[in-house]
Amino acid sequence: MANQYAVIGMGRFGSSVATTLYNEGNEVLALDKNEEHIEDYKEFVTHAVIGDSTDEQTLRAVGIRNFDTVIVAIGDDIQASILTVLILKEMGVANVVAKALNKHHAQVLFKVGADKVIFPERDMGERVAHQLMASPNVLNFIELSDDYSIEEIKLPMSMAGKNLIEINLRAKYNITVIGVKTADRVDISPDPEKTLRAEDILIVLGENGDLNKFAKLK
Amino acid sequence: MANQYAVIGMGRFGSSVATTLYNEGNEVLALDKNEEHIEDYKEFVTHAVIGDSTDEQTLRAVGIRNFDTVIVAIGDDIQASILTVLILKEMGVANVVAKALNKHHAQVLFKVGADKVIFPERDMGERVAHQLMASPNVLNFIELSDDYSIEEIKLPMSMAGKNLIEINLRAKYNITVIGVKTADRVDISPDPEKTLRAEDILIVLGENGDLNKFAKLK
Ligand SMILES: Nc1ncnc2c1ncn2[C@@H]1O[C@H](COP(=O)(O)OP(=O)(O)OP(=O)(O)O)[C@@H](O)[C@H]1O
Ligand SMILES: Nc1ncnc2c1ncn2[C@@H]1O[C@H](COP(=O)(O)OP(=O)(O)OP(=O)(O)O)[C@@H](O)[C@H]1O
Ligand SMILES: [Ca+2]
Ligand SMILES: [Ca+2]
Ligand SMILES: [Ca+2]
Ligand SMILES: [Ca+2]
Repeated sequence: MANQYAVIGMGRFGSSVATTLYNEGNEVLALDKNEEHIEDYKEFVTHAVIGDSTDEQTLRAVGIRNFDTVIVAIGDDIQASILTVLILKEMGVANVVAKALNKHHAQVLFKVGADKVIFPERDMGERVAHQLMASPNVLNFIELSDDYSIEEIKLPMSMAGKNLIEINLRAKYNITVIGVKTADRVDISPDPEKTLRAEDILIVLGENGDLNKFAKLK
Repeated sequence: MANQYAVIGMGRFGSSVATTLYNEGNEVLALDKNEEHIEDYKEFVTHAVIGDSTDEQTLRAVGIRNFDTVIVAIGDDIQASILTVLILKEMGVANVVAKALNKHHAQVLFKVGADKVIFPERDMGERVAHQLMASPNVLNFIELSDDYSIEEIKLPMSMAGKNLIEINLRAKYNITVIGVKTADRVDISPDPEKTLRAEDILIVLGENGDLNKFAKLK
């Protein structure tokens, strides 16, 4: 069932949120005071409207109260971001998610009623830093805690042609294989006797130190 | 062993990359033409220098060639971003990672030699959109493919007090429990007879449709 989302502020972050939601089959209203930004995205969302979100009339005119979730993705203009969240909550929007530039901004957003505050640049900066530190063999990861992660790691060249029993990662590296990604599928209960190929990717779980060691193998 | 990184452009994204790398024990040089941004971060990186990265003398003076990886996190000034990457590669920096605003910007960055191009706002927009669509019970996720994901999902209230054998997620929901997160630890080979508590988080793997169904349970 499609949900209804409104995205206010179609900068790089807001436009990515809006078009992703739309591509996944949701109804998406985009609002931006900049005509050009609206032009750029009008074919990639359900409705695209030029207008200033600090103006209550504009929000009323687009029926903002009918949306399940409103994302406020205004960045540099902190005042506009705060005022927009305040008005949205006063108008009775149930779920308002707002982008913050820093902690102080976030505190004020919560005070005026934001239900959730996000820091896209900070969070992505942390992710990118971890990717830079990791071996290039690590393709994707999720941190379960400070110590444990799940990672997608390219099969070390030296293990191609062997099977999971032979490489025995649990005993040799203290890591657990959760699945194997091949060219055409993800195998989440892989046959331990199936021969691994050079281009396979292992989905593994373990302590960060153990994963790092494994990811460095050739 | 500590690596040496230089981050050029200490906006929100660049400063997050720089401070994360520094906190993880690496040597980090931060360069920004804006004095205030350098003031703000000088205690959170190894060296913080005011300077314009489009000036080759500045880059030479900080010994930029000695860094393993240089991250160019300049955003709005596309020309400065491109020129910086060009100079860095001409000076012989081995690994240059650059932030792009859009596809055209990225194409030019590759043409002038960037080794990797990243789109932090776009990528985080996609992540946030998926989080918005997911149940609030989903705390973290990794997409293994279009169909399969690993997710951290809050234990449904109705399952508190039962154990893994009793809730039998494999048979009932077609999903696999990889681990259990409790207040103080991540248990990656959880005892199937241990009683689950209301505040536990399950780390589960499965098809997106099955995971969505499970995440909606109360
Ligand atoms: N009052 C407002 N009403 C509607 N749109 C607004 C308002 N203020 C700003 N915007 C729009 O919000 C968008 C994002 O704002 P801005 O570029 O300042 O943030 P940003 O954090 O640099 O964005 P990003 O990093 O996502 O590109 C812009 O397209 C801008 O036109
Ligand atoms: N030529 C340059 N030399 C050094 N620093 C620069 C140069 N040009 C821009 N910067 C710095 O880069 C930083 C990021 O630039 P800008 O704010 O334009 O990008 P942004 O994409 O909006 O950033 P973010 O979204 O990460 O906050 C700023 O601190 C700016 O001072
Ligand atoms: Ca901007
Ligand atoms: Ca930004
Ligand atoms: Ca300051
Ligand atoms: Ca900026």
